[in-house]
Amino acid sequence: MSIKNVAIVCGTHGNEITGVYLMKKWQKDLSLISRESFSTGLLQGNPKAYEINRRYVDEDLNRQFAQKDLENPELGSYEENRAKVINQILGPKGNPKTDLIIDLHTTTSNMGPTVLIPQKGRFYNLLAAYVKQQMPEAIVFCDEDSRANEEHHLLCTVGKYGVIVEVGPVPQSVLRHDVFEQSEQLTQIILDFVELFNQDALPELPESVEVFRFIKSLTLPVDEQGERIGMVHKHVQDSDFAQLNPGDPLFMKFDGEAILYDGDKTVYTAFVNEAAYYDNNLATSLMEKATLSTK
Amino acid sequence: MSIKNVAIVCGTHGNEITGVYLMKKWQKDLSLISRESFSTGLLQGNPKAYEINRRYVDEDLNRQFAQKDLENPELGSYEENRAKVINQILGPKGNPKTDLIIDLHTTTSNMGPTVLIPQKGRFYNLLAAYVKQQMPEAIVFCDEDSRANEEHHLLCTVGKYGVIVEVGPVPQSVLRHDVFEQSEQLTQIILDFVELFNQDALPELPESVEVFRFIKSLTLPVDEQGERIGMVHKHVQDSDFAQLNPGDPLFMKFDGEAILYDGDKTVYTAFVNEAAYYDNNLATSLMEKATLSTK
Repeated sequence: MSIKNVAIVCGTHGNEITGVYLMKKWQKDLSLISRESFSTGLLQGNPKAYEINRRYVDEDLNRQFAQKDLENPELGSYEENRAKVINQILGPKGNPKTDLIIDLHTTTSNMGPTVLIPQKGRFYNLLAAYVKQQMPEAIVFCDEDSRANEEHHLLCTVGKYGVIVEVGPVPQSVLRHDVFEQSEQLTQIILDFVELFNQDALPELPESVEVFRFIKSLTLPVDEQGERIGMVHKHVQDSDFAQLNPGDPLFMKFDGEAILYDGDKTVYTAFVNEAAYYDNNLATSLMEKATLSTK
Repeated sequence: MSIKNVAIVCGTHGNEITGVYLMKKWQKDLSLISRESFSTGLLQGNPKAYEINRRYVDEDLNRQFAQKDLENPELGSYEENRAKVINQILGPKGNPKTDLIIDLHTTTSNMGPTVLIPQKGRFYNLLAAYVKQQMPEAIVFCDEDSRANEEHHLLCTVGKYGVIVEVGPVPQSVLRHDVFEQSEQLTQIILDFVELFNQDALPELPESVEVFRFIKSLTLPVDEQGERIGMVHKHVQDSDFAQLNPGDPLFMKFDGEAILYDGDKTVYTAFVNEAAYYDNNLATSLMEKATLSTK
């Protein structure tokens, strides 16, 4: 089955402005994102949040795309409504007019150019291998929810296929030249992949590709009143996708005492100290290494 | 004349949260900021902006402290009112009860630990020399407004003396362990300085100290409609206090063309691509090297 319609979405979070500037660039020269075998559309996810320079107006848009929420008219916040409109434009989820959604995000964490894959399947495995072949410094971040796709709440799951381009570090509301370039390069590589996939012209790919798979999130330490009593330790800060070993410093309490990682095996970190995750008191994601097969 | 009352102010910008966490730490153990020869108070500049996790509610609090604005009851935005209250607490400006205000800030720019000095005088020159002696990696940033102190609009100018502790890089709304430590160390050094100054017990200081002095700001390139057409070039990004030479790449236009620095002499950058300055379309400050004398 070939990909006929691709949508590039930007500004799903209003203060992740890199994608919005890429959109403005591409709108002036659509040939940059055009390929022969499919059409490419551009959509700004949350223009109102961009206007007020915030992640969202009422709540996180990128958590509003579970099927039951899209079908629930009682959910009427700005983003709950906007999700229903996006589902009309790109979906409808389950039987969508869009074959692939590429959703452009940035992070304050030192994750470099990362492609986040929220589902399993051969298409994704080939994509992962092609991305690593063309851009070895890119990271493939797998978070394949075990639930059915209809329960996924990410915007990109409205398409038949969907991925997130996630690049950092860049502060919220900032445009960095390097992050702009990496986001553009990674998006171009994905478009190239689709073209080659459609034409059955992919280059020879390795039999397997190394990825990181999400295990769970860790929260910041708090006292009995829920007040934070520590921060991410500088040993872990900026060390996304580096090893975290049992006994390594993980948090530094404000009273000067370090809290060590008490897991029983080596893991890897991601989204370390991401600004947007303070809302939920998250400190870091824990990841494990895994491989995807292209056979 | 000795310093009797010091005020440490934090959270003047609501999304610069490092100082707020330092305040919480110090409130639990006031001995950390106490010295024999003076008293030290703590004040959160803009609690409401901190609560909503924004720089400000209506406008930048740290621009509301010119004498004529403090005296103008017509100026009634949240921050214009808050400035009048802070002037009551720490001032009044011109005849203040506070001898020294230390205002804690952070920046998204790669400025390291910086002390910003907004006025001229022997007290400041000695402070600058002591800070550089105790913390050689610290930067002294002079922006002595040529206008009378009463026209200065910064919060710290409400005190008889005032300085800003400005540390980065850290994204808005993020607490970094290293930035927390640098902010604390720099503040402690300033408190130590005051103690030694009061006791006439300063160590031998070099005859002069190298500083950077603000020249002017550069704006981002825009088209005739005022729309941004480029970003800070990666040659300049993260290069705060590094040389910018005539002909160096300064901006990268979205169409791929670099804009070179067209000044006629070597300068230095600061506040490069600072998130908060996008409001005014500022790209970077330009600085020159200068020396302050301790004699």
